[in-house]
Amino acid sequence: MKTLVLTLDLVGTFVFALSGAMAASRRRLDIFGVLVLSFVAATSGGIVRDLLIGATPPAAISDWRYLVISTLAGLVIFFWYPAIGRLRNPVLIFDGAGLALFCVAGAQKALVFGLEPVMAALLGMLTGIGGGIARDVLLSNVPAVFRSDIYAVAALAGASVVVIGDALQLPTTATACAGAALCFGLRLAAIRFGWHLPTARAPENEAETDKIDQGR
Amino acid sequence: MKTLVLTLDLVGTFVFALSGAMAASRRRLDIFGVLVLSFVAATSGGIVRDLLIGATPPAAISDWRYLVISTLAGLVIFFWYPAIGRLRNPVLIFDGAGLALFCVAGAQKALVFGLEPVMAALLGMLTGIGGGIARDVLLSNVPAVFRSDIYAVAALAGASVVVIGDALQLPTTATACAGAALCFGLRLAAIRFGWHLPTARAPENEAETDKIDQGR
Amino acid sequence: MKTLVLTLDLVGTFVFALSGAMAASRRRLDIFGVLVLSFVAATSGGIVRDLLIGATPPAAISDWRYLVISTLAGLVIFFWYPAIGRLRNPVLIFDGAGLALFCVAGAQKALVFGLEPVMAALLGMLTGIGGGIARDVLLSNVPAVFRSDIYAVAALAGASVVVIGDALQLPTTATACAGAALCFGLRLAAIRFGWHLPTARAPENEAETDKIDQGR
Repeated sequence: MKTLVLTLDLVGTFVFALSGAMAASRRRLDIFGVLVLSFVAATSGGIVRDLLIGATPPAAISDWRYLVISTLAGLVIFFWYPAIGRLRNPVLIFDGAGLALFCVAGAQKALVFGLEPVMAALLGMLTGIGGGIARDVLLSNVPAVFRSDIYAVAALAGASVVVIGDALQLPTTATACAGAALCFGLRLAAIRFGWHLPTARAPENEAETDKIDQGR
Repeated sequence: MKTLVLTLDLVGTFVFALSGAMAASRRRLDIFGVLVLSFVAATSGGIVRDLLIGATPPAAISDWRYLVISTLAGLVIFFWYPAIGRLRNPVLIFDGAGLALFCVAGAQKALVFGLEPVMAALLGMLTGIGGGIARDVLLSNVPAVFRSDIYAVAALAGASVVVIGDALQLPTTATACAGAALCFGLRLAAIRFGWHLPTARAPENEAETDKIDQGR
Repeated sequence: MKTLVLTLDLVGTFVFALSGAMAASRRRLDIFGVLVLSFVAATSGGIVRDLLIGATPPAAISDWRYLVISTLAGLVIFFWYPAIGRLRNPVLIFDGAGLALFCVAGAQKALVFGLEPVMAALLGMLTGIGGGIARDVLLSNVPAVFRSDIYAVAALAGASVVVIGDALQLPTTATACAGAALCFGLRLAAIRFGWHLPTARAPENEAETDKIDQGR
């Protein structure tokens, strides 16, 4: 199980680092900013998970492979950005693959550290979406995951498969593959068909409420 | 003392989760975003406190009740937002009550973990204001607490009562109630009478300084 | 070595707190906001480093001197802001000195906790730049370090001197001074001569890409 977690983690690291580097390049950060955003987007979810379950130092800090991989991804984007920046689909597909790999790896690690099933599933989701949230906060945006198509829900579904599989004592490699496939499939379908979660209806006097609220 | 901390924590969780869900609904986040903001606003202060004092995994992660309560609050807001969004006072009062409960509970937990009195009071304050700061940062706002009416100061006052009471070996339930009442009273009075903290005077050539500074 | 780390830490704390208080005053935060930003800018880098290496509670929480020093710096700025706000160079020089002191102190602490050399150098850099990143995120700005002149690179260079010196078993005080001098010198030269890191070239259809991307 340890090897599986590691492999998923490293592949996911590369694809998420690509997404961080893309966002940084689009905002015209310098090469240092691009490399930091690569590392942050790739590892924040896992680092926060590790801090929360008490696994210090986090894998992304003690194992230099995460740094090498995310730096590599950052350099790829930095030098080929004019070409890659034109493509929209590859980025979304990379991102979906990273999400699928991370939610599964995160849930498995949380189970290894003895968390309860529901919390293990949520930490799996957090591992998947945490990097993107940190990336968006550092670039001063409201995290896309909070108003995007089905994204966090796909991660939660994938992580839940792992947790349920663990409770039923199914083979871990099989449930990991199933969870990742479910998450990836949901995410691609959401992009393809434009699935969204509902938002709250506005109160009738919204504008006025906002005005009052800002006075606070 | 443990039961008292837990009770304060759970009630405070609910009221702060309401504030997070309100802010998220106002920014038109989808239902997932609303539930995350509920959880973040309700638990970030406590999670950061627990990470800082080394109490991993934090209570909000290992105890599923926090999640259930914050999700419940998020759903209440999500479905009733048009009605609740019109009300300003209830939200501010909820928020003040949450602040009072959290600063007291946070200070007590820090004392239980053996921190020095001054730091225990500050961690109590952080427990109270941390959730609101995380909520505002995720929504890409400057945290309201940094330029609001008396808010953090009320939390610090409440937490200080607990710490001083502990040093004088007064009964903990009594000092907890006194601390929460002081914080809540200060906060309501600040809203009612528009109390503010002073801001620094501007230098004469402010505009020019800003221009230079952005060039940096 | 412990005394050296502590001394560097405390002096660096003061100068970084000045930078946080300046930024907060410029954004017209109240005195509480100014004091929080002083503390955050001065201690976030070290707090994150300590959380990552598992040194809880972080020094900035368990040792009240950091709080006293950063509060003092905040008060100095708060009351003398009209005078100090006019000066640009002193702030940048303070900031450079803080960076030099923190990157060296951070790398040494990471080595004491047994991290690998490359990660110790990076944690040294993080100790130096983390406070500024937290300050900018709280004020809802994209961190200046991501598109500034040579800044993080200077911190990385200073931290690397410490790590290399440790590997070669040179006397720690000497390597600390050399590392701090290198970082400080690089930083001042970057300001003086306007050195910048390169940014990625824009794709030809940038505007269109942005539009698509925001629809996501």
